[in-house]
Amino acid sequence: MEALKKKILTEGKAIGTEIVKVDGFLNHQLDVRFLEEIGAEFKKRFSDIHVDKILTVEASGIAIACASAPLFGYPPVVFAKKAAPSTMNEGFYEAEAKSFTKGTVSKLKVAEKFINEGEKILILDDFMASGEASAALAQIVKEAGAETVGIGAVIEKGFQGGSDRLREMGYRVESLAVIDRIDDGVITFR
Amino acid sequence: MEALKKKILTEGKAIGTEIVKVDGFLNHQLDVRFLEEIGAEFKKRFSDIHVDKILTVEASGIAIACASAPLFGYPPVVFAKKAAPSTMNEGFYEAEAKSFTKGTVSKLKVAEKFINEGEKILILDDFMASGEASAALAQIVKEAGAETVGIGAVIEKGFQGGSDRLREMGYRVESLAVIDRIDDGVITFR
Repeated sequence: MEALKKKILTEGKAIGTEIVKVDGFLNHQLDVRFLEEIGAEFKKRFSDIHVDKILTVEASGIAIACASAPLFGYPPVVFAKKAAPSTMNEGFYEAEAKSFTKGTVSKLKVAEKFINEGEKILILDDFMASGEASAALAQIVKEAGAETVGIGAVIEKGFQGGSDRLREMGYRVESLAVIDRIDDGVITFR
Repeated sequence: MEALKKKILTEGKAIGTEIVKVDGFLNHQLDVRFLEEIGAEFKKRFSDIHVDKILTVEASGIAIACASAPLFGYPPVVFAKKAAPSTMNEGFYEAEAKSFTKGTVSKLKVAEKFINEGEKILILDDFMASGEASAALAQIVKEAGAETVGIGAVIEKGFQGGSDRLREMGYRVESLAVIDRIDDGVITFR
């Protein structure tokens, strides 16, 4: 997605060799008009599939999923929680995922009642690194007897191998911008 | 907002005397089409004010803010973080807020660069209890030399006094549904 690559280059910031910071439009401050363009691009890439629900992870993923939902005909959006609130007292699925930028392991939780057997689930997220978060969500989908029909990431750090790994597991993956290298403040796209 | 009250009664669940669970459309699973109606209602209530930015708190607040932004002409949405990621290494404002449902104290953080002097900020959130989260956000706005032009909550637990407290502090508050009492599974609106 050319507009996204341009936005990453003009508004993003490369740090070291592994981090690209896009807190100006994707991770802290949100450019909702641009997120709608991202939603339209996901719809274009996944135009041939039927989506019953969009699954993502709090927090930034919520913005992506909400901006994409109208394009897919307003399926319910479900976001996995990293911590269970005191009101989450019914059954839930849980899967572990490591966050690269936070250096922590999160236990992603989704209430059982929100993923049903046979549903076709589209997983969307802002970043893909090693693909751990998406793999954890896909595991939850499987456990629920539902089907992951696609995995979409806005920005993929290609050098961390996430999409390769997920494709080997049999998933269809679409990343809107794949970064091949971050070197001394310079971002190179695939 | 009548449609909201109806949705709370039909899809929500009252627990004990203090909790109303609306994880089916607002807090875990999101009904984006309905969130757009909520955004339109906020715009109606705040139709006379100019909004430079919408400020909210992760995670559920993001969905509300993103669904409202188009109605206000797509101002940037900024969401306060409860934990600082390793990439948040520049200056940020911080204010404490207690979460009623999680029983924890969060230190809400907003990068300094995203709230600028003189900006008119609309604070939006999903729930209002004692008003701690909104007060914390308003404190951050003040610290940045910006102005809180309004505070909007989707659901207010009126019996916890949040909006009264915020109005005493001089803020304009709009809650789309005010719950007066939760008693043995029965929700009474103001």
